[in-house]
Amino acid sequence: MVQYDSTVDRAFAALADPTRRAVLERLGGGSATIGELAEPFGMSLTGMKKHVRLLEDANLVVTEKIGRSRRCKLVPYSFEGISTWLQRLDRFAQVVERTKGAR
Amino acid sequence: MVQYDSTVDRAFAALADPTRRAVLERLGGGSATIGELAEPFGMSLTGMKKHVRLLEDANLVVTEKIGRSRRCKLVPYSFEGISTWLQRLDRFAQVVERTKGAR
Repeated sequence: MVQYDSTVDRAFAALADPTRRAVLERLGGGSATIGELAEPFGMSLTGMKKHVRLLEDANLVVTEKIGRSRRCKLVPYSFEGISTWLQRLDRFAQVVERTKGAR
Repeated sequence: MVQYDSTVDRAFAALADPTRRAVLERLGGGSATIGELAEPFGMSLTGMKKHVRLLEDANLVVTEKIGRSRRCKLVPYSFEGISTWLQRLDRFAQVVERTKGAR
């Protein structure tokens, strides 16, 4: 059951951007520095840092400063709760659809 | 596979609000009019209409005008794609976590 707190708000808001979703997909293949994440988008480090900060605030990504670069990785189990909640909603939607007219 | 188009952006943005998530949960129990949705929140019809409009634009909810009221229901299968995508990300996050240090 998803709690209606600001972490969930932040998670969904962070996911509402195609660049951030692409960053998450990239991190699904392994950790990466901000520079490595920025490069395929032709984006500045500053621009990518802002995206990563939003993912971090939503607890979907953690970062670690290593030397002069910052390495990012996904937070395991952070997507599970909202995914399960969405699945449950979909099942309910299907049940409501099948029983319509019976109200 | 989630497409990086504006429908997905709109779905996640619509989900980033606790009132709208509560509306979706309510609709998981069956269709409801705007008035029935507004009542437990002590919200005006105008305020609830705005929330429902955003859910409609994101293709998570459909509405149908019946007499003087507008009945809302969940769109079956509209949550499935993003739920599956999030689950896949979580599995990747768990794999990356287990193999860290092996990079």
